[in-house]
Amino acid sequence: MPRIVVEVMPKPEILDPQGKAIASALPHLGFQDFSAVRQGKRFELSVDGEVTDEALAQARKAAEEMLSNPVIEDVVDVRVEDA
Amino acid sequence: MPRIVVEVMPKPEILDPQGKAIASALPHLGFQDFSAVRQGKRFELSVDGEVTDEALAQARKAAEEMLSNPVIEDVVDVRVEDA
Repeated sequence: MPRIVVEVMPKPEILDPQGKAIASALPHLGFQDFSAVRQGKRFELSVDGEVTDEALAQARKAAEEMLSNPVIEDVVDVRVEDA
Repeated sequence: MPRIVVEVMPKPEILDPQGKAIASALPHLGFQDFSAVRQGKRFELSVDGEVTDEALAQARKAAEEMLSNPVIEDVVDVRVEDA
């Protein structure tokens, strides 16, 4: 069943305490290669049948209006994925 | 600067109350096209310089060991993305 994936990240200028916590813990666990970490959200919206242009447009609208907070977050991707 | 994107989702058999809450709210806001919603996490790991095979291997290991809880979550994607 196809689904629409929506990805939301904190805006670059917004502090991301979860990402910071992960970034500072990684070296202690032996992961030295990363200079920064940011944490965001990934949503999977299931669609019955095929993904129409209408469904994709609805997903883009829902991403902007409901799945993200436009004050502090950016919608970085809306794409169709086969399950 | 390139970065590694890690995506983590709740396992299909695990209840996802956040996703369920979104799915039941969507129709009230005029979004009728979606039969189910699941919510997971998206991490961006920044790498200084280019992404080596070593860095990608470290990201895969960190994804399995630290960024996800293997009891309830699956790592669904680890990929390189240009910022």
